[in-house]
Amino acid sequence: MSHFNRIAVIGAGLIGGSVLLAASRRKAAGSLAGWSHSRGSRDLLKTFAGVEVFETAAEAVKGADLVLIGTPVDKIKETLMAIAPGLKAGAIVTDVGSVKESVQRDAKVLPGSVTFIGSHPMAGSEKAGAAQAKADLFEGRVCFITPTGNEDAAAVQRLHDFWKSLGSITTECGAKQHDAFVAITSHVPHASAAALMLAVAHSPQFNIAAAGSGLRDATRIAAGEENLWVSILLANADQVVAGLSSVEKNLQELRDAIKSGDKAKVEALLKAARVARQSLDSSR
Amino acid sequence: MSHFNRIAVIGAGLIGGSVLLAASRRKAAGSLAGWSHSRGSRDLLKTFAGVEVFETAAEAVKGADLVLIGTPVDKIKETLMAIAPGLKAGAIVTDVGSVKESVQRDAKVLPGSVTFIGSHPMAGSEKAGAAQAKADLFEGRVCFITPTGNEDAAAVQRLHDFWKSLGSITTECGAKQHDAFVAITSHVPHASAAALMLAVAHSPQFNIAAAGSGLRDATRIAAGEENLWVSILLANADQVVAGLSSVEKNLQELRDAIKSGDKAKVEALLKAARVARQSLDSSR
Repeated sequence: MSHFNRIAVIGAGLIGGSVLLAASRRKAAGSLAGWSHSRGSRDLLKTFAGVEVFETAAEAVKGADLVLIGTPVDKIKETLMAIAPGLKAGAIVTDVGSVKESVQRDAKVLPGSVTFIGSHPMAGSEKAGAAQAKADLFEGRVCFITPTGNEDAAAVQRLHDFWKSLGSITTECGAKQHDAFVAITSHVPHASAAALMLAVAHSPQFNIAAAGSGLRDATRIAAGEENLWVSILLANADQVVAGLSSVEKNLQELRDAIKSGDKAKVEALLKAARVARQSLDSSR
Repeated sequence: MSHFNRIAVIGAGLIGGSVLLAASRRKAAGSLAGWSHSRGSRDLLKTFAGVEVFETAAEAVKGADLVLIGTPVDKIKETLMAIAPGLKAGAIVTDVGSVKESVQRDAKVLPGSVTFIGSHPMAGSEKAGAAQAKADLFEGRVCFITPTGNEDAAAVQRLHDFWKSLGSITTECGAKQHDAFVAITSHVPHASAAALMLAVAHSPQFNIAAAGSGLRDATRIAAGEENLWVSILLANADQVVAGLSSVEKNLQELRDAIKSGDKAKVEALLKAARVARQSLDSSR
């Protein structure tokens, strides 16, 4: 039952664009519709095989039985208001935002004739925009699905089947639980990488010749678009603040041990970090 | 003048082993000698084409006009004492340690008949050991050379030529200056990645399903061997402590801005980090 007659993607950047490419390649729908905020992005979408591109979001969703919102987190509410008049009764509406609790609140603007269920495919890049979209972006990647528990079970199942049809591995939890998970694995690392990058760049001792692959990897995510990330961090502020406090605490502990020359303590902390990091890879 | 009659590598792990492979492939010496602390590592070296492997470090350096020390930073002094009796008069001795000021002090145990000049090839991996060695490890990578200024200029030039012959781009500065450079670009990122990894791993909200490539990249270097890193961080403690304080300060500033919902401030900090990170790549 993963097949939809028509899928509309509203806000086709990296993720939304990749959904269109993947759905087209894997024939996940009878037809595909797309809309993006900017003319340049809409023109790019017109080059995607099998995608009908519209000038307005409300037109694009007409007749779609799955509508996927790919606009930034702080634009989702206005996007939902814009498409509401065009939605077909019985349509499933989802989004791909990196936070889910605030989006679930935003979805209350939708008519009662449609079913909203949040999604969050754990796929992406520090590079944004439809020009970066890839048909295989979701293959083998986890996609969270965050129902409230009050939806029709068949609709939730269809959403699972849809993401699976794009190659994702789906997992389900509440929106609040999801936000706690991604705070520590995604939002806190992003903010930490940004803080590290700022400390490095502001140092009078910074010399690009001494910058190796370690620094580049540790700060790669800090190259992400700030306009996307500011709304994510603020929408999940409580969890992110708690996680950042923990990073600071761990940094202080390590710094104190280095300062006092406590070799056993420094070694124990580095070892615990190494073991934890290696288990990230071994569990892939 | 990059050619040496005989090069001995004492302590052939990832870096020392790669020096042997690269020198062999690029015919940087008339003959190559190698020694490693463990029998298993010596047995592995015997499989490297054109490398004569010895049971003791003092034997391995006999007749060499370039001796390269690849033992961990906290073992360099005892390695230098062990090889001193075997060194040929006029030999150039260098090391590949990640700190240079403490090694320069250690080198005072060497006889006056040889010339010590520190090196630090900015190449490596979180994976240690001769089994990870690669002949192309130094290609296109910066190598710092840290003379005191009191050496024979011809010896310094020969060391430059040697690293260039392995594909490195050499750059020269004082040992103290070098240590300040790598503190902020390598040692502080390492400690920060470890602290982030600990905060993530200790979080009750940690869920491996939510761990994406961002977290993996940001913490990759934390998988490095703690016994190598503890001596590096402690040998460069003052600079590392100062850099970590700066990371903490930047984290606090970002956390405060998120906590107070100051969108403009969060966006400005993330933007500054993005611009700084992008300039790391554009300058490669």
